[in-house]
Amino acid sequence: MITHSQTVIIPSFRLDCGVTLSPVPVAYEMYGEMNDNASNVILVEHAFTGDAHAAGISDADGKLGWWDRMIGPGKAFDTNRYCVICSNVLAGCRGTIGPSSINPETGRPYAMSFPATTIGDMVRLQKELLDALGVERLLAVSGGSMGGMQVLEWAVSYPDRVLSAIPIASTGRHGAQQIAFNEVGRQAIMSDPDWNGGDYYGLNPPRRGLAVARMVGHITYMSDESMREKFGRRLREKASLEDEDSDVFEVESYLRHRGSQFVNRFDANSYLYITKAMDYYDLFASENLANLKESDTRFLLISYTSDWLYPSYQSLEIVNLLRSRNHDVAYVELNSNYGHDAFLVDVAQQTEVVHGFLSSVHRNREARANRAPAMREKVRR
Amino acid sequence: MITHSQTVIIPSFRLDCGVTLSPVPVAYEMYGEMNDNASNVILVEHAFTGDAHAAGISDADGKLGWWDRMIGPGKAFDTNRYCVICSNVLAGCRGTIGPSSINPETGRPYAMSFPATTIGDMVRLQKELLDALGVERLLAVSGGSMGGMQVLEWAVSYPDRVLSAIPIASTGRHGAQQIAFNEVGRQAIMSDPDWNGGDYYGLNPPRRGLAVARMVGHITYMSDESMREKFGRRLREKASLEDEDSDVFEVESYLRHRGSQFVNRFDANSYLYITKAMDYYDLFASENLANLKESDTRFLLISYTSDWLYPSYQSLEIVNLLRSRNHDVAYVELNSNYGHDAFLVDVAQQTEVVHGFLSSVHRNREARANRAPAMREKVRR
Repeated sequence: MITHSQTVIIPSFRLDCGVTLSPVPVAYEMYGEMNDNASNVILVEHAFTGDAHAAGISDADGKLGWWDRMIGPGKAFDTNRYCVICSNVLAGCRGTIGPSSINPETGRPYAMSFPATTIGDMVRLQKELLDALGVERLLAVSGGSMGGMQVLEWAVSYPDRVLSAIPIASTGRHGAQQIAFNEVGRQAIMSDPDWNGGDYYGLNPPRRGLAVARMVGHITYMSDESMREKFGRRLREKASLEDEDSDVFEVESYLRHRGSQFVNRFDANSYLYITKAMDYYDLFASENLANLKESDTRFLLISYTSDWLYPSYQSLEIVNLLRSRNHDVAYVELNSNYGHDAFLVDVAQQTEVVHGFLSSVHRNREARANRAPAMREKVRR
Repeated sequence: MITHSQTVIIPSFRLDCGVTLSPVPVAYEMYGEMNDNASNVILVEHAFTGDAHAAGISDADGKLGWWDRMIGPGKAFDTNRYCVICSNVLAGCRGTIGPSSINPETGRPYAMSFPATTIGDMVRLQKELLDALGVERLLAVSGGSMGGMQVLEWAVSYPDRVLSAIPIASTGRHGAQQIAFNEVGRQAIMSDPDWNGGDYYGLNPPRRGLAVARMVGHITYMSDESMREKFGRRLREKASLEDEDSDVFEVESYLRHRGSQFVNRFDANSYLYITKAMDYYDLFASENLANLKESDTRFLLISYTSDWLYPSYQSLEIVNLLRSRNHDVAYVELNSNYGHDAFLVDVAQQTEVVHGFLSSVHRNREARANRAPAMREKVRR
């Protein structure tokens, strides 16, 4: 499946902080066919450093989508039945407006003058996108990690537009340790002299700081066990006899490599804005929680045993919150050694659970849709 | 108790890498009275960034020793009965020779020309110190974290000189995750342009990189739970109305503060050398393990439930190794929410366990010492 990224321009968008951006490009991709009444649409939310390219092979760079294991014909999000949409988040750097975008008022990149962004802003902008695409109600909204936060925010912001919500390996709010890891990343970036107060566009970006930030991230995405299995204490193989780095552990060269790779595809200021949005998100303190009252959104939460970045107890906090308000919540803790990355790479069980849940949501919807005209008939008589 | 740091000069010392350093100053402190035959000496080993000042109030800077909760009259290492010695490790920066010391051959700091250092080197240098102080055999050697690695190395390098060994919250070898966290710290330092290939003495040290490294370290020393209890999601209190940082989480300002404090007391190059020594240490692959065969050293290992940096399974690996070789090993996993820091701060149970173990070791020794002349008498008859 070759996929193509598209862009919708939202004329004007007001953020929680009060600032209005205009115009606002939003990059998105779409897989599968939207049916006539747009009732088969699933919105997929990407994690922190993801983008709109969730599935298939990009026609731009030939890369596979970040959730290709889950999205496609016959997969969990079955593109033979459903139409899957994924957009790059606000404040990102992969086609949607963010700190690296040109501010039309100055003709220069926003950099640190970009307005503070919230998870709520990201979700409201996605609502604008769906309005533009003519999607009234989502069959499901799903995503892992920060994607899961957006799923939760969708459910409380637009309960009438979300038939089902599937937050995976996520949380309703960051605890101190999660904030702390993000803060280390931010400090690593801002400590790099090349960061230059955020004004590095056209100059050297803060490559070293951003690479260190990414290294920390990678450790938290894996489990102790998966790192042991993948690397153990093995030394890196010598590339040549003169190789100075030959006494380096494999895990070190892997992290250095991933760190420096990341710099080529991600913007350091986006790193700052998006981690802040995550840290400030707090479902439990949200005024929107009251909107849930009349909602009949069905929830499926999934967490992973070895995920220590978004541990299961945080999913359970959400389950308890929703159940105490009498919502329809299914929760599964899946076994995996892959840590937080499990929702991306260890998807066999996840596929089964999501597939079953979606089929049930879909069936219910069809049943209700068929019942509705009959009911109307009755009323007429 | 006011304490005073002293220095012994070892004329010449050969490292595992083959390089000989000369002369070699070793900083140490001593608490309690050494008895006539030096049979009441306990060697305490500091963790990564610790120093010789383990107990009491330093006469130099008024600071409390890092294990003052454990060392003193009536405490676990009871200075009414025992004489406790602690020395700064080789490659450190607190009085013992290290990268920041002047190389007499050049008149300038060694910096990165300091020879690669191992945990074995650290222990052999401590043996030189004890020789100089006239201590033949240690009643006990104990320490937490990297201190525990040195304890293990003592036990296999000089089994005849170690009556008992107490490694706490430690490991026989780093796994991939531990190496990875150390590597992040090293990269943060070496990415700081002020590091300048290690040649920053007399110039600006790599303050920002070292601070980031320390921040990562601090997260790993605490548990998710202790961070939640200590900080939660509380915002930092405004210091003043103009305070720009007022929307900062407490955990962020705490980490920044600890990071920048650390820079004033620790040398960045020592950070590099010592973390490498830890990462390369491997008890399980050590040739010295064979020395243990005839040893009657008694072992007490302690680990903590919430310590995810040096998890209990790593202590159990050591326990299994020693038991499979028929050694006398006691092992206790203590309950604590404090994570890796527990061995420093949550010492009530640890005190009880160590106190009981030491009394038993001490009693056995006295009994044996008393039996020995009687035996000799018998032989004479």
